[in-house]
Amino acid sequence: MITPRTLKGFRDYLPEVMIPREHAMQTARQVFQRFGFNPIDTPALEHLEILTGKGSEETDRQLYHFVDNGGRPVGMRFDLTVPLARFVAQHINTLGTPFKRYHLAPVWRGENTQAGRYREFLQCDFDTVGTDSVVADIETVLVIHQLLQALGIRKFTIHINNRQILTGLLEHLGLASQATPLLRALDKLAKIGPDKTAAEMIRMAGVTDAQARQILALAGCRGTTAEILRRLPEVVGDNPSAVSGTERLRQIFDGLAAAGVPANRLRLDASIARGLDYYTGAIFETFLDEAPHIGSVCSGGRYDNLVGTYSKQALSGVGASLGLDRLLAALESLGSLPSVRTAAPVFLPFFDPHHLHDYLMLASNLRSAGIGVELYPEPKKLGQQLKYADSRGFQVACISGADEFQQQQCQVKDLANKTSQTVAYTAARPEALVEAIQQILDANR
Amino acid sequence: MITPRTLKGFRDYLPEVMIPREHAMQTARQVFQRFGFNPIDTPALEHLEILTGKGSEETDRQLYHFVDNGGRPVGMRFDLTVPLARFVAQHINTLGTPFKRYHLAPVWRGENTQAGRYREFLQCDFDTVGTDSVVADIETVLVIHQLLQALGIRKFTIHINNRQILTGLLEHLGLASQATPLLRALDKLAKIGPDKTAAEMIRMAGVTDAQARQILALAGCRGTTAEILRRLPEVVGDNPSAVSGTERLRQIFDGLAAAGVPANRLRLDASIARGLDYYTGAIFETFLDEAPHIGSVCSGGRYDNLVGTYSKQALSGVGASLGLDRLLAALESLGSLPSVRTAAPVFLPFFDPHHLHDYLMLASNLRSAGIGVELYPEPKKLGQQLKYADSRGFQVACISGADEFQQQQCQVKDLANKTSQTVAYTAARPEALVEAIQQILDANR
Repeated sequence: MITPRTLKGFRDYLPEVMIPREHAMQTARQVFQRFGFNPIDTPALEHLEILTGKGSEETDRQLYHFVDNGGRPVGMRFDLTVPLARFVAQHINTLGTPFKRYHLAPVWRGENTQAGRYREFLQCDFDTVGTDSVVADIETVLVIHQLLQALGIRKFTIHINNRQILTGLLEHLGLASQATPLLRALDKLAKIGPDKTAAEMIRMAGVTDAQARQILALAGCRGTTAEILRRLPEVVGDNPSAVSGTERLRQIFDGLAAAGVPANRLRLDASIARGLDYYTGAIFETFLDEAPHIGSVCSGGRYDNLVGTYSKQALSGVGASLGLDRLLAALESLGSLPSVRTAAPVFLPFFDPHHLHDYLMLASNLRSAGIGVELYPEPKKLGQQLKYADSRGFQVACISGADEFQQQQCQVKDLANKTSQTVAYTAARPEALVEAIQQILDANR
Repeated sequence: MITPRTLKGFRDYLPEVMIPREHAMQTARQVFQRFGFNPIDTPALEHLEILTGKGSEETDRQLYHFVDNGGRPVGMRFDLTVPLARFVAQHINTLGTPFKRYHLAPVWRGENTQAGRYREFLQCDFDTVGTDSVVADIETVLVIHQLLQALGIRKFTIHINNRQILTGLLEHLGLASQATPLLRALDKLAKIGPDKTAAEMIRMAGVTDAQARQILALAGCRGTTAEILRRLPEVVGDNPSAVSGTERLRQIFDGLAAAGVPANRLRLDASIARGLDYYTGAIFETFLDEAPHIGSVCSGGRYDNLVGTYSKQALSGVGASLGLDRLLAALESLGSLPSVRTAAPVFLPFFDPHHLHDYLMLASNLRSAGIGVELYPEPKKLGQQLKYADSRGFQVACISGADEFQQQQCQVKDLANKTSQTVAYTAARPEALVEAIQQILDANR
C-alpha cells in the first residue's frame, strides 16, 4: 500500500478552489481577447541552456532540471518570460509584428516553502512585442484595469512610473553604472523605509549619503499626477532620458483618461522601481486598496531588448503579469469569493427507479436549454439526496416522483430560500420549467 | 548567442493553433459542467512511487523522472488517471460520493517521436467515482455525445460494449486467467484482422484454435443493437457475468434513447475490448465516420477498483478521456477548422496621430459593448495597416481619420466581402456603430 500524498510545496486543487480559479482564468482570457491579444503555449520542458542565466541567480538555483532519456540536459520553465523570448526569437518571422500574446500556464520553482510559497503556480502574462509606441503602454494599463474590474475587484490602484526618469537621474548623478544595485535597493523602499534603503544603497552601490538622498527625493515626490509631472524637472534636472520619460508618462496618463479610466484608479508613483534589469521604460504595479499587504497583483513594464540572447534582432515590447493565485487568495480573505462547490446549478434527485427514463429526458431537456444539471445516480431516499445537494451548494432542486411525472409537473425548490413552487410542463414543451429555474438563477446572481 | 529551439518531441502552439485549441477546451469544460462534473487540478510532479507500476511497462519506461533538490525521487505525470486515483484516495472523505470531476491538463511521456507522437500532450478526462449505477454509465455516453456535437463533429459513432460479456465468455471457456493477453490481442482486431488476431491469441495466451475462434465469434457478432442483444446468449451461453453484462448493455441503450440520442450515433460493438486490465464493465470508443483511421477520439469505461494501491476503500466508477489534440488534427484535415489568427474580430487602424485620444475612446466604447478590438499601435499608412489586418484575418475594420472624427462617422469595412459602409455615431452614443459591426459578425457566423 502506497500512502497517497502530494510533494512538499505542491497542492491539489479541489472543486471548491478550482471552480473560481477556472472562472478567473476564463475571465482573464476574455479580457485579453477583447484587446486583440492571442493565446500561445510553450512546452513545460526546455533545453536547459535556454533557461539558465536568464532570471536571477535565485531562479537558477530553484530550477527543476535533469538529464532526459535522450541524454539532453532539460529544465522545467520557471517563468513565462524566458519561454516568450525563445518563442519570439524562433517564430517572429512567421508571426510578424506587432505580436500580441497572452499565456496562462503553470511554472515551477524549487522555492523555500517556509515562506508560504508554492513550487508550482500559475502565471498569466500578456505582452505586445515589436513596437515602441505609447499606444501599447496605454493599452497595457487598460488591460490591467479591465482585468481587475472583470475579476470583481472593486478598489484597486495602478501605480505607474517610468524607468527612464530613474535612469536619467542616475546619469545626472554619474551613477549609471550602479543602476542595478540601486534599483534593487529602491525596490525595497515601501517595505523597509527611506533610512534603511539609503543604507542599503550606500552599502551595495557605494554611493554617498547625499546621492542616496537625491535618489530618495525622487521616490518621495508625491501628489497628484499633474503636481508630480510639474515637480519632476526640479528633481531630475534636464537630463534627456528623464525629460523624455516625463513626457511619456504625461502621454500615458492623458491617453488613459481619454480611454475612460477614472483618475482615482491611477497613480504616478515615482517610488516604484521594479528590481529587474530588464525594464527600460514605463513600469506598472497594482495594489488592492483593501489588501495592500499582499503586494502587487499585476506588474510589468516596457523593455527594449526581449530576445537578446537568442537573436540579433532588436525587439522591444511592453507587458504585464497577473498574479492570479495571489489575487484569488486575496479575494477569498476579503470574503469576495462566492463559495461554490458545483459548477452545475441544478440538482435532479432520482428517487423513483421506475422512472429512470423520465429523469434522463428531463435532464436532457434542461441541459439543451443551457442549464447545468446533476442527476443523482442512485435511487436513494429523497432526504439523503437533498442533504447531498445542500452539501454541494446547488441552487435549485427539481423534484419529481411518480405522481409528478404522471401529472406533468415538477416541484422547483429554491435551495437558498427554502421556497418551493409547483410548475406544470410537458416533456415536449419544457419552457415553463426552464423559465421558473432561470428566474431563481437570475435572482441569485 | 543560444539557438532558440524546442526539445525534440515538444512543440510551440502559435495563435492560429492555440485559438481553436483554447476554444475546444472551453467548449469541453462547458459540456462537463452542464452534466454536473467539476474541475480539479493536480501537480505536474508526483512522488515517483505514486507513478511507477500503475500504467504499463511502456509508460514506466517513458516516465520523465529525476531526483529533486530535496533528494526526493519525483516524476512528471504520464496520464490523469493515476493522479485521479491518488487524489481520490487522499481526499474522498472531504469530497464525498458521487464525485464527478473533469481534468484538462498536459501529461508527459518520453515516447518514440518517430511514430509522429509528441512527448507533451493534453489529456481531457471526466469520471464519476463512487457509484455502480447504470445512470453514470448512461451519462458518460451522453457527455461523449454532447462533447463531439459541441465541438462541431457532424458524423461520429460511439461504440459500446461490456467487458462482463467478454469476461463471461472467457469464464465459460475456462480461460479467465488468460484474460489480459487475450484482451490485448482482441484490441488489435480492427487493425490486423481475425486470422492474425487468432494467431496472436494462440501465441500469447496458449489457447487452442477453436477457443480463439469462439472468442472471435463474439467479436464478430454484428447487426443492430436489438439483433446483437438477441444473439449474444447463443454465443456466450448462460454464464452469469455475460447475462448481467448483456442486461446492462440493454439498460444503457434504452436510457440513451430516452435521453434523446439518435440511434445512428450509437453502436453495440462486441469487438471492442480496450486492452487495459483496469476496465470491468461498460466500455466506450468513439470514431469519426469521416476519419476512422485516426482511431478512437474518446474512450473509456467502467472500473471497479480505482484506488486499490493507495487505500483499502472499494471505489468504483466510470469515465472517459477525450483526445482533444487528435480531434483537432482530424478537424483540421477535414477542413472543418476555421482559420483564425486573431481572437478579436475588429481591427482599428491608427493613421492620424493627432487623434490618438479619439481612437482610444472608440476602442473603449466598442470593447465595453463586448466587441474585441485591436488598435494598431503605430500611425503607419492605412494601406500597410490594412495589409496587416488581412494577414491576421480580422473580420471588420473601422476606419476613421480626421474627417471622420470631425463628422462623427466611421467607415465600417467588411474585410471578407470587401464591402464598406459609412456609419454615423457619437462618442456618447456609439450604438449605431456597435450594431453595424455586430451585423457583419453575426452574418459571418
